[in-house]
Amino acid sequence: MSDQANDLPNGWKGCLVVAQSSEDPYLAPFTGGGRLASSFVLIPRSEPPRLGYLSPMERQEAALSGLELLTPELLDMLRWSREGTPPDELWANVLSRALHLSSMSPGTLGIAGSLSAGLITGFSARLAGEGWFFEPAEPWLDLRRKLKSESELEGIRLAAQGTCAGFHRVAEVLRQAEIVGGLLRWADAPLTVGVLRREVALELCRHGLTQPCQNIIAPAEEGAVPHNTGTDERVLKAGESLVVDIFPKGRLFADCTRTFCVGPPGRKLEAGHRKVEEALELAESEAKVGVSGWHLQEVVCELLGRAGYPTPISEPGTTRGYVHGLGHGVGFELHELPSFRRHASEGEGQLEAGDVITLEPGLYDEAEGWAVRIEDLYVVGEQGLENLTPLPRSLDPQDWYS
Amino acid sequence: MSDQANDLPNGWKGCLVVAQSSEDPYLAPFTGGGRLASSFVLIPRSEPPRLGYLSPMERQEAALSGLELLTPELLDMLRWSREGTPPDELWANVLSRALHLSSMSPGTLGIAGSLSAGLITGFSARLAGEGWFFEPAEPWLDLRRKLKSESELEGIRLAAQGTCAGFHRVAEVLRQAEIVGGLLRWADAPLTVGVLRREVALELCRHGLTQPCQNIIAPAEEGAVPHNTGTDERVLKAGESLVVDIFPKGRLFADCTRTFCVGPPGRKLEAGHRKVEEALELAESEAKVGVSGWHLQEVVCELLGRAGYPTPISEPGTTRGYVHGLGHGVGFELHELPSFRRHASEGEGQLEAGDVITLEPGLYDEAEGWAVRIEDLYVVGEQGLENLTPLPRSLDPQDWYS
Repeated sequence: MSDQANDLPNGWKGCLVVAQSSEDPYLAPFTGGGRLASSFVLIPRSEPPRLGYLSPMERQEAALSGLELLTPELLDMLRWSREGTPPDELWANVLSRALHLSSMSPGTLGIAGSLSAGLITGFSARLAGEGWFFEPAEPWLDLRRKLKSESELEGIRLAAQGTCAGFHRVAEVLRQAEIVGGLLRWADAPLTVGVLRREVALELCRHGLTQPCQNIIAPAEEGAVPHNTGTDERVLKAGESLVVDIFPKGRLFADCTRTFCVGPPGRKLEAGHRKVEEALELAESEAKVGVSGWHLQEVVCELLGRAGYPTPISEPGTTRGYVHGLGHGVGFELHELPSFRRHASEGEGQLEAGDVITLEPGLYDEAEGWAVRIEDLYVVGEQGLENLTPLPRSLDPQDWYS
Repeated sequence: MSDQANDLPNGWKGCLVVAQSSEDPYLAPFTGGGRLASSFVLIPRSEPPRLGYLSPMERQEAALSGLELLTPELLDMLRWSREGTPPDELWANVLSRALHLSSMSPGTLGIAGSLSAGLITGFSARLAGEGWFFEPAEPWLDLRRKLKSESELEGIRLAAQGTCAGFHRVAEVLRQAEIVGGLLRWADAPLTVGVLRREVALELCRHGLTQPCQNIIAPAEEGAVPHNTGTDERVLKAGESLVVDIFPKGRLFADCTRTFCVGPPGRKLEAGHRKVEEALELAESEAKVGVSGWHLQEVVCELLGRAGYPTPISEPGTTRGYVHGLGHGVGFELHELPSFRRHASEGEGQLEAGDVITLEPGLYDEAEGWAVRIEDLYVVGEQGLENLTPLPRSLDPQDWYS
């Protein structure tokens, strides 16, 4: 999160972030790494944020934030729990108390953060009775989170290092695999997607990373549907494409994709891979401070379109060829600003020094049963991109060790 | 989720579950294990649920649900994305289309599931303009989720088996530890909380489990604040208590706690441990179909109070002695029904055959620097409890192998 002033949009009395866990990407930038369950941040206009939490057992975790605390005692939690107050009413009471303790007078608040929908519609209806109204605060908070602080960058670097280790493990297993009757074997057993997934999970675990959004290890036509995560039972085959997309989280996320092929690839896969590499290099050379994500998408679509592949610009909604956006920001969420969409505003879409982005061109053909995606993670700097996942890009795992 | 009929509360036209991921505990029971990002379930009165998803790349994952699908094509996603529709308006458009496609006429809907708060307040205000109003659906859905299906029970059993393996690994490391100058050493290095946490993570990983809510490995006075997760850098000491609370997730959660002590425990820790074991045995003997969670809490408070420890009944809000509830249901959420709270309704609080619960008495003294908690996970059956985490309860890791 950038160190901007408390520049609340006009008309807001303040901004409220509610969450059922400190893993919430809107709450996490405020907590300093402490683990909290139900909690919230209230940012009154022109004042520093304060952190509210509902369980007295979390007092030490809450203190890690360094923020002024709205404790369960100040929020009268014991009373609501003694009276058996239903959750949406309890949240209304707690937030009403927090607003009062912060000497705020009724009006409009920005709101963001994840709680179950019935709690939100319930407490917002109750607070409307006290004169409080809500506007979506995600756009404002997303912009604040776009530029990374040094400590946030450090979190992403650590996650990226573990991600690279995960890929080296994949390459090592694939390099060691034997081909028997067209199928891969490793450690005296069929090499399945599930085995590879376990090896990745163990390696990430050794680096203190988790996979809250899982991962994608998708062979052949499974990889050709970009969000297909791959079937664990499936035995890998020689000559087929294998898309491996790993996006683990430490305190923040990292994200990287490589495509492998054990044994000689088919002609179309090989040509697709060459073209995707070329597209990635082009995007890297064009990605500079002041350029928009959408511009990069256009440049890549132009290249891939010229090579005869359908693209989202030439054929909106296509599921063959290049079928998605070129990249996204990465931070407390796997997908955040900057945006690579056509309609992103300048603030949302323009690359600035301190942004963290992916670039991930790909080509897909479900009918022909192959896919290629190559994705790296970068910090945008005044001097150009810094690649946080500088791994080999070859299809052949043997090349990872030459 | 129990196989009840579509018994929507009176006055609702239907129920809507919105989610940013299929990990959402309100959405997950409907998905059949497929991985989805932004998605929703709509249950019209007297009709089967249908699953809506926003990304065409997730069509194979969505199909795993076996439900009728509201596809991105039916929901006009391409149009909203081409027009650069802001997210809260996009959700309003998509849901409005889903309601129309389901031939529903305006009125009240139950709502639950997690999306960021600004999206929810935004789309609900827009849909109010079309005559749709929302009531919290969590209470109704929580009750549906209380009794587990066979496939859900199987998911919990698998998670419990991995959890037990994690505890055996902890006991093994502690048993192998040497005491040097009062501090523990293992594998030629100081044995820290962080080292033990890594060993647990690796073992859980080998069993295909993740730790979305982390874990608690908390020595001495850190363990005495029940939600303190423990400091990684801290070197473990002989004679101190070590609370280890592991609650990993496969498709569903498991939850178990043991307290260890390497070397002879102090008198108070030993007495506390004996009393907590007694409290757990008492709770196990009282936990039967038809009994409420709150009754079990009363029984345990009575026992611990008689032994001279403050309890939440004798001293509401106490942070010394027994300081929390006795247990909770476990399923797609770590904490779900049945409820052990005083004000739980009969439906929420009463044990039924097919419930999955924890029982977890504990004693805490931050000033004296010790804590004990013992927690097991059970299926409630007509014939009594089935313990899914039947591990040794001794403080001494040597006893785990005798």
